[in-house]
Amino acid sequence: MKKPINRRSFLATAGVTATMALGRRAVAGANSRIRCGIIGVGRRGTHLLRLALSVPQVQITAVCDIQPVHLERGREMVAKAGQARPAGFGQRGPKDYLRMLESNDLDAVIIATPMQDHGVMAIDALQAGKAVLSEVAACMTLDECWGLVRAVEASGSFYMLAENVCYFRDCMAVMNMARQGLFGGITYAECGYVHDCRFLHFDPDGSLNWRGQLARDYVGNLYPTHAIGPVAQWTGINKSDRIVSLVSMTSRSFGAHNNASKKYGPESPQSRIAFSKGDTTTTMIQTANGAVIDLRYDTTSSRPHRTTVYHTLQGETASYRSLTGDVWIESKSEGYRWEPLTRHMAEFDDPLWKQSEDQAASSGHGGADFFVINEFFAALRDGRPSPIDVYDAVTWSSVIPLSAASIRQGNARIEVP
Amino acid sequence: MKKPINRRSFLATAGVTATMALGRRAVAGANSRIRCGIIGVGRRGTHLLRLALSVPQVQITAVCDIQPVHLERGREMVAKAGQARPAGFGQRGPKDYLRMLESNDLDAVIIATPMQDHGVMAIDALQAGKAVLSEVAACMTLDECWGLVRAVEASGSFYMLAENVCYFRDCMAVMNMARQGLFGGITYAECGYVHDCRFLHFDPDGSLNWRGQLARDYVGNLYPTHAIGPVAQWTGINKSDRIVSLVSMTSRSFGAHNNASKKYGPESPQSRIAFSKGDTTTTMIQTANGAVIDLRYDTTSSRPHRTTVYHTLQGETASYRSLTGDVWIESKSEGYRWEPLTRHMAEFDDPLWKQSEDQAASSGHGGADFFVINEFFAALRDGRPSPIDVYDAVTWSSVIPLSAASIRQGNARIEVP
Repeated sequence: MKKPINRRSFLATAGVTATMALGRRAVAGANSRIRCGIIGVGRRGTHLLRLALSVPQVQITAVCDIQPVHLERGREMVAKAGQARPAGFGQRGPKDYLRMLESNDLDAVIIATPMQDHGVMAIDALQAGKAVLSEVAACMTLDECWGLVRAVEASGSFYMLAENVCYFRDCMAVMNMARQGLFGGITYAECGYVHDCRFLHFDPDGSLNWRGQLARDYVGNLYPTHAIGPVAQWTGINKSDRIVSLVSMTSRSFGAHNNASKKYGPESPQSRIAFSKGDTTTTMIQTANGAVIDLRYDTTSSRPHRTTVYHTLQGETASYRSLTGDVWIESKSEGYRWEPLTRHMAEFDDPLWKQSEDQAASSGHGGADFFVINEFFAALRDGRPSPIDVYDAVTWSSVIPLSAASIRQGNARIEVP
Repeated sequence: MKKPINRRSFLATAGVTATMALGRRAVAGANSRIRCGIIGVGRRGTHLLRLALSVPQVQITAVCDIQPVHLERGREMVAKAGQARPAGFGQRGPKDYLRMLESNDLDAVIIATPMQDHGVMAIDALQAGKAVLSEVAACMTLDECWGLVRAVEASGSFYMLAENVCYFRDCMAVMNMARQGLFGGITYAECGYVHDCRFLHFDPDGSLNWRGQLARDYVGNLYPTHAIGPVAQWTGINKSDRIVSLVSMTSRSFGAHNNASKKYGPESPQSRIAFSKGDTTTTMIQTANGAVIDLRYDTTSSRPHRTTVYHTLQGETASYRSLTGDVWIESKSEGYRWEPLTRHMAEFDDPLWKQSEDQAASSGHGGADFFVINEFFAALRDGRPSPIDVYDAVTWSSVIPLSAASIRQGNARIEVP
């Protein structure tokens, strides 16, 4: 997206304190607690809640979930962790989180609801003056993208996208290499989220849940951030480069139907659902500096699990591929040969990982969730800029509506606004 | 391309003997020799000549090369192999091959010249009534694509594309799986030719050769057939499916210039050449049955060599990836787990490989060149259809002009004619 860069430049040249304007204010003094609420304590929210409860100086003061069982489980978790039993919200339905946002006993909110709700909830929370950590994707429409940017800029509130893959150890090491310029100019990156998630389409009672609804009603890349997040950071998107256009193409849809039919029988109502999302969606992205990003998304193909995400980066003077864990760096490697990335970890391992390896290891997703939660609260406490700010969040998430637009317009090139 | 299928159907329904119409006539009786000429005996042609000399009942009666040293070396090779010293052509310049084609002492021609010349030379040879084995790509323009099809149909001559990757052992095994329907409907394939070939841009005297000229003057995917060939066969392109459109995107160009500058110095004439070809070109292809093919081409990035080509295939009920040599087949695999392809070779190894493993092993490109040469002459002798016929050849090669058109039109979707 063009605007973030322009705005950032504008703020800088206009002499406005970017820290203030972008909501980088500390919400708590060195000795005071950050009071945090969480919206959505299902599968993912519960995991994040557990991690948040382990962060010193963070108090969970509110829990919101429209499912009573989840809500009660979440509140109990907090109490069992030795904190005061938090206020509960959600009993009054899907909009009850707004009541929670009115609370004065709340500095920050973690949003871990179904993806369709992230954007609006984050906008509401920002407008209520709360700091936000939003699960991915940030939102699903272009209107929400702009809404999020406006909400951050108008409120001065803090926003971070909980993109955990950016905190993968290998991804951070490659980021450190790229930051030192070892790749030279970037020409190409390949990334993808390829993970058979059809087992998540239906709730135990056989009803189609929000993930299943996405597969039924949407086309396009519906889950781009794990793939494009690290690549965008390496490539300097929204810093030294920007995305200018994309083209997307999708395959026919077999997987979701086959899964429903196998699970519930060929005559079941589930088997008669018409799923519109193609099994694989490929998106090519062009950047202003002339790099091409090849982005794949596939959550419904029959295919055993292996890595979920993969990333490659090709620069003028270095090349990296996650699938084989290999790297070649002209200025570092011995000869013109691939080397295991591990060979360079002593030099490029991120300080975050060096310091907290043991704590992170047990936190899920290879330790990355630990850093997401901790960096959110640390940045908030210290008044640091958001590690993954609203501009990155909406740029990465805008692939959802823009890839759909490209497909609906017959694989047209879509200019990225 | 639409036309091949229609034409094939037409021929079938019209009751015309397809064998005749498509030039599938035996050129030699069981006991007579096939008299073969070769145009271009440089690096690649010499290799093919050596293989041809090992095929029983094939006599090399003519050699053509515009470089006297190459020509003499080629003729000597034939003589040293115990055959009569062949006629020599090429001394009179680039069009001297036409004189060779007038010869009555010639049934077949192998074309191994610079890529820019394949199309016209093959058309000339077909029109002269010679069977043709053409190195890849078949041609570089749409006019040549149509010209090749017309030449085969009008002359009834035999045409085969020397696409050796289609004869890779693993590729043939996957083909046998696909032929048995183990993949179900195909949704996605990924393939690429990624190989730093910059060392081939300049001749020893420092002059830019034809490969360098391609990098200087062209954009697009200039070498698609090794990547798309096997994938097109697996997907049933020109049989049960067809390509309907493509979109292509390219990166900026660093590699060719950096190579020239490093090799000849930053002030050298070579360093001042403006190379137009981007380091990486990505092409997305849509098929009529709704599959997406993601095709990468990169011969100028700084990147150590590994596999040159790679292929993946995703179907409704199976998945394959060459990079890791893994496959999963719903009806064959134990559980929902990747397995090494080798585990299924006993069942799917191609008979060609089973029979000729030892002979093939020493022939270059993993044995594939052996099969290309042998299948060409065997099909010719037996009056079998061309294993890789003109319709496949021009469909795969048409990616060259069509990807360039897409890029020049701002990543537009190009309908494949």
